[in-house]
Amino acid sequence: MARGRFITFEGGEGAGKSTQVKRLAARLEAQGLEVVTTREPGGSAGAESIRALVLNGEADRWSPVTETLLMYAARRDHIERVIRPALARGAWVICDRFADSTRAYQGAAGGTDPALIAALEAHILEDVRPDLTLVFDLPPEVGLERAHARAGAEMRFESKGMAFHQRLREGFRAIAAAEPQRCAVIDATAPMDAVEGAVWTAVSERLAVHG
Amino acid sequence: MARGRFITFEGGEGAGKSTQVKRLAARLEAQGLEVVTTREPGGSAGAESIRALVLNGEADRWSPVTETLLMYAARRDHIERVIRPALARGAWVICDRFADSTRAYQGAAGGTDPALIAALEAHILEDVRPDLTLVFDLPPEVGLERAHARAGAEMRFESKGMAFHQRLREGFRAIAAAEPQRCAVIDATAPMDAVEGAVWTAVSERLAVHG
Repeated sequence: MARGRFITFEGGEGAGKSTQVKRLAARLEAQGLEVVTTREPGGSAGAESIRALVLNGEADRWSPVTETLLMYAARRDHIERVIRPALARGAWVICDRFADSTRAYQGAAGGTDPALIAALEAHILEDVRPDLTLVFDLPPEVGLERAHARAGAEMRFESKGMAFHQRLREGFRAIAAAEPQRCAVIDATAPMDAVEGAVWTAVSERLAVHG
Repeated sequence: MARGRFITFEGGEGAGKSTQVKRLAARLEAQGLEVVTTREPGGSAGAESIRALVLNGEADRWSPVTETLLMYAARRDHIERVIRPALARGAWVICDRFADSTRAYQGAAGGTDPALIAALEAHILEDVRPDLTLVFDLPPEVGLERAHARAGAEMRFESKGMAFHQRLREGFRAIAAAEPQRCAVIDATAPMDAVEGAVWTAVSERLAVHG
């Protein structure tokens, strides 16, 4: 059986990714595809227990380097137990955040050495690389206002200052600019239906889905 | 002020390390030194919360690669918050397990790629390397019998099979053989007072303590 496709959604806080993950999954399922929707940090039992450590508590609970290692521990468990098996059986996997979030949050915004992140990508991701990454872009002041409106627990990153979130946005834009064949930038300030349309255009054109 | 010294205790389960850490600390304090005793995984608030994830549950709860990343996340937090500050103020740090345990448990016994472990040592340990490592050696069947006699929670590694523990012992012995200038092998089958004497001989001769 052919390997499935791996689509990741990336971007800062309050970008509307989770809503759009669900809408894309429904459209792909309507094509008769098996779709697995998941998220990071988390997505497997072990990774969700690591998520609880990383996303709660004070902003300085962990240094960016320690966060990088925790994120990659969670990612490895998620890959081994969920993503790789799903792709192997031909399913399409849609993941809300993946390796680009470490590059942007812990790297570009947090200051972690890019050489450490590159070494982890090489050793830990192995062949599990996104076929398509949708980078949801919006001004951080807009995203943080949305994020605080839905606020619950897991606000550790939201509590970091505006300068952090500006570096984060620039980090994601730099990733998209460096890998245009893999990444599509989505204007996340648009109305939800327009965002859904932009996501579908990117997926159907780049991954040859005919719907 | 001169940097303090960093002494690590390594070895398999039930080797009697924690008792000997206390005895060595008392002897060094009697010399007027500031001594910090600590342990891995753990030793800082964040690292202890990671310890709870790693040491509890079923033997296959985490793969060896995921364990490696969790151990290094805990180690980084421990280094940043406890070990490096203590060494910088001139304290002697005695740590029950450190980076060699990852080489032996996740590497030699667990099968994790040594290149991943080497990359993590380079990026995460930086300048925090033991001045002296005491490798407590004993047959695993003896150590596991002792470990089960004190059994409580945190038995995840003890629950792995005898073949794992044989590879573990060989892993520690290989480390000591490869780095004889840093490592001293201690016969952990000897009576406790004899072990204490062997530890003190190694510390006083190699680190020029006069007691």
